[in-house]
Amino acid sequence: MSELRTQALACRDAALAVAELDSETKRHLLRAMADALQAASGAVLEANAKDMAAARDKGLQGAMLDRLRLDADRVTAIAGALREVAELPDPVGVVTRRETRPNGLQVERVRVPLGVVAMIYEARPNVTADAAALCLMAGNGVILRGGSEAVHSNTAIANVLRGALGANGVPEAALTLVTDLSREAMVELLQLTDIVDLAIPRGGEGLIRFVAEHARVPVIKHYKGVCHLYVDSAADHALALDLLVDGKTSRPGVCNALETLLVHKDIAADFLPRAADALGRRQVELRGCERSRVLVPQMKPADETDYAAEYLDLILAVRIVDDLDDALAHIHRYSSDHTEVIATRNEEAARRFVRAIRSAVVMINASSRFSDGGELGLGAEIGISTTRLHAYGPMGAEALTVERFVVRGEGQVRHPQSRVPNETEKGNAHAG
Amino acid sequence: MSELRTQALACRDAALAVAELDSETKRHLLRAMADALQAASGAVLEANAKDMAAARDKGLQGAMLDRLRLDADRVTAIAGALREVAELPDPVGVVTRRETRPNGLQVERVRVPLGVVAMIYEARPNVTADAAALCLMAGNGVILRGGSEAVHSNTAIANVLRGALGANGVPEAALTLVTDLSREAMVELLQLTDIVDLAIPRGGEGLIRFVAEHARVPVIKHYKGVCHLYVDSAADHALALDLLVDGKTSRPGVCNALETLLVHKDIAADFLPRAADALGRRQVELRGCERSRVLVPQMKPADETDYAAEYLDLILAVRIVDDLDDALAHIHRYSSDHTEVIATRNEEAARRFVRAIRSAVVMINASSRFSDGGELGLGAEIGISTTRLHAYGPMGAEALTVERFVVRGEGQVRHPQSRVPNETEKGNAHAG
Repeated sequence: MSELRTQALACRDAALAVAELDSETKRHLLRAMADALQAASGAVLEANAKDMAAARDKGLQGAMLDRLRLDADRVTAIAGALREVAELPDPVGVVTRRETRPNGLQVERVRVPLGVVAMIYEARPNVTADAAALCLMAGNGVILRGGSEAVHSNTAIANVLRGALGANGVPEAALTLVTDLSREAMVELLQLTDIVDLAIPRGGEGLIRFVAEHARVPVIKHYKGVCHLYVDSAADHALALDLLVDGKTSRPGVCNALETLLVHKDIAADFLPRAADALGRRQVELRGCERSRVLVPQMKPADETDYAAEYLDLILAVRIVDDLDDALAHIHRYSSDHTEVIATRNEEAARRFVRAIRSAVVMINASSRFSDGGELGLGAEIGISTTRLHAYGPMGAEALTVERFVVRGEGQVRHPQSRVPNETEKGNAHAG
Repeated sequence: MSELRTQALACRDAALAVAELDSETKRHLLRAMADALQAASGAVLEANAKDMAAARDKGLQGAMLDRLRLDADRVTAIAGALREVAELPDPVGVVTRRETRPNGLQVERVRVPLGVVAMIYEARPNVTADAAALCLMAGNGVILRGGSEAVHSNTAIANVLRGALGANGVPEAALTLVTDLSREAMVELLQLTDIVDLAIPRGGEGLIRFVAEHARVPVIKHYKGVCHLYVDSAADHALALDLLVDGKTSRPGVCNALETLLVHKDIAADFLPRAADALGRRQVELRGCERSRVLVPQMKPADETDYAAEYLDLILAVRIVDDLDDALAHIHRYSSDHTEVIATRNEEAARRFVRAIRSAVVMINASSRFSDGGELGLGAEIGISTTRLHAYGPMGAEALTVERFVVRGEGQVRHPQSRVPNETEKGNAHAG
C-alpha cells in the first residue's frame, strides 16, 4: 500500500471519531489549536523563512511572494481565524426538517459530516489552518495537499495543530498533511474513491483544471470570477458609480472584483463618461465596444477575449447593451457563474435579472465585493463554489455537511403480511 | 460538432427557458404530458412490442424481460406518476433562509435549478417519463440516455412528452433523448463539463462503475444497498422479527431489502432460532457465523463475501456480535451507505447507533423497506443517493435544485473610499 493510501485510511478512521465529537469539544479543540499556534509562532516563522528563501532562489516575486510570506501579525491572524471558527454554529446534528408520516413514522432530515475532505491548494499557508478548522467544526477529517513552495510552513502549522488534537485525545490523523508532493501522488489522492468524499481545489486555473481532469472523487470547483455589473436604464447613477468603483478598484486581484460593465443604451451617454472619469482617476484601463468608444473615445477597443477575461487587475471591459435581455444574453455567454450585479430602481427589472441569472450570487444595488462568506453571514468560508451542485457560492462549515434521513418507528413494516403469524398479538401491541 | 453535443447544447438553451417557468405552467405541462401519454398508449405499446421481441431474440428472460415490458396498466401508471409529480411542491424559488446583515444587506438563500441533468439508465422505460417529470418540476433540462434494449419504448414515450412540451410553447429540447447509444457517445455525454451539471446513473453495478470511471461531470451514484438490521440486547423480539421478515421477504430484489442480520450475543439464543424459523417458513436461506451456527445448526457458513453481498434474493447473512460497538464496527466495514436499522427499546443505544452510523438512512424500530422517496415524504424520487454530497438518501425534486445567494442592497460598498468624491452627497442620500 502506498504511503499516501496508508495516511488517507488513517484519516478516514480518525474522521469517524471526529464525527462523534460534540460542539463544546470541537470549540475547545479549536481554541487549543489557536493557543498552540500562537505559542509556536517562532517555529512557524522559522519554517516560513526557509520557504521564502527557496522561493526567492526560484525567482518568485511580487504577489506570489507576498502570499507565501508569514510574519508575527499574520500568525496571530491565523490563530484569530481559528478562534472565530470556534464561535460558529455547529452544523452537525442540526435537524432541518421533521415530519410524522401517516403511518406514524417520524422522519427527520439531519446534518452529518461529509467524511473526509481533501483540500488541494497552492501558496497560502493560512489555508492549512483555515481549512483544518472548518473541516473539524463540520466533523470531518481533512487531507491537506498544499503547494511545494509552502511545504515548510504548512508542515510547521499542521504539526502544531495535530499536536493540539493529540493532546486532547483526538487522533492526529484527522488532520493529515500529504508529504508526497509529486503530481502522481496528487492524482492518487484524487482517485481514492473509497476514502475521499470531496476534493476542493483552490488556486490558479491550471491547478483547478488538473484536479477536474484527474479526479474520480467528487470535486467542487472554485473557479475564476468574471463578475458583471449591469447598469439599467432605471439605475441611480451615483449608486451605480459607487458599485462600479468599489467592485473594480477596492481589491482588483480577488475573484469577486468586477471585470465587465454593461450599460443600458438609454443612459450610456450620461453614465459612461462619468464612469470613465471616476475610473480614469483610479488608473483603471477601459476596453470597450464600438458604441461605448463613441462616447469615450480614449477607450481601447475590446474583443471577445476581453469579455471572457478575469483580469484581476485595473482593467475593465465595457459594453453598451440595448436592454435587459441583451445584458442577460451577454452574461449567459460570458459568465463564470460567480457573481453578477444589477443597479436599478426598477423592481421588475431586478426580479427578472434575479430569475434569469444563474450565477451563485446575484446582487441588486450592492457591490460584487460582498460576495464572500464572511460578508454574507457564513462566518468563515472554505471557498466560493461555482459548481452548481451541493453548494453554490460561498461555502462555510454547513457546506461541509450533508443532510441524511433519521427515521423512528414503533415496529412499522411495509407489508402487513410480514408480521410473523404466531407473534401477531405482540406485534400489534407494540405497534399500536 | 458531434450530433450529441449539438443535442446537448440545445437542451442547455432550453433549460434556461424551463428555469423561468412558474409553478402553474409546470403543473399544466405535466398534466398535458400525462394526457398525451395516455392518449398515445397504443403507439407506446407497439414500440414496446418491438423491444420485447428483440429482447426475446437476444435470450433475455425473467426479471430482465419483466422490467422492459409495458402493458396498458403500466402506461396508465406512468401517466399517473406524471400527474403525481404535478401535485408536488415546486422547489424552485423557495427561500430557505433570510438575514439582514449589520450593513443593511438583505441576504437570501434561494433554490434554483441545477441546469441540465443527464440520466443514464437501463431497461425500465418508465424512467424516461419519471425522470423527465421530476427534472421539469425542478426547472431543469434533462438528457435521457436509456438502454439500447428499450430504445423503441423510450423513443415513443419521449416523443409524446416532447410533443406536449412543444404544444405548450416550451422548447422540446428541454427533454432530449440521446439517439446515439454507443459507449463512445455515453463517454462523450459524461464529459460535457460545459453543458451537463449532474449525471445520475441508475442500473446495475457495471453501468454505475462505467459512469463513475468515465465521468468528468459531477455524478451522484445510486449504488447497491447492503442494508443491516442490528437486533440489540434491549430489542422487542416480536418487533425485531417483524422488521426482519419485512426487510428480507416483502420484496427481496430491491435495494432497501435487508441483506445482513446482526444479533447481540445476550439475546441470540432466544432470538436467532425464532428468526430462523420465521425465515425458514418463507424459504429464506441463512448463512451465518460460527457462533450463530451453534444455535441454528442447519445454517450454512458465511464468509467475507456473504457480508459484502447484495443478494437481492431470499438469502440472508447472519452474525452474532458482542455488543453495539461490535455491530457498529461490522457495519462500518461492510456498509454500502444505504440504510441501516436498529431494533431496540434502549434510547441511549438508539442515539449512539444514529450518531455512529454514517449511512444515508438510519432507522430505529422501522423496516428498511421504508427507505424510499415516497415512503419518506418526498412524493416521488429520482433514485437513492449513496454519494455523501449534495443529496444523501432518497432524492426528490428538491435534490434537483441548489441553493444560491440573492442579495439586495441600497448602494452598499465594501470600502467607503470607493464612493466617488464629487458624488458623495447623492451617494449617501440613496444609501441612507
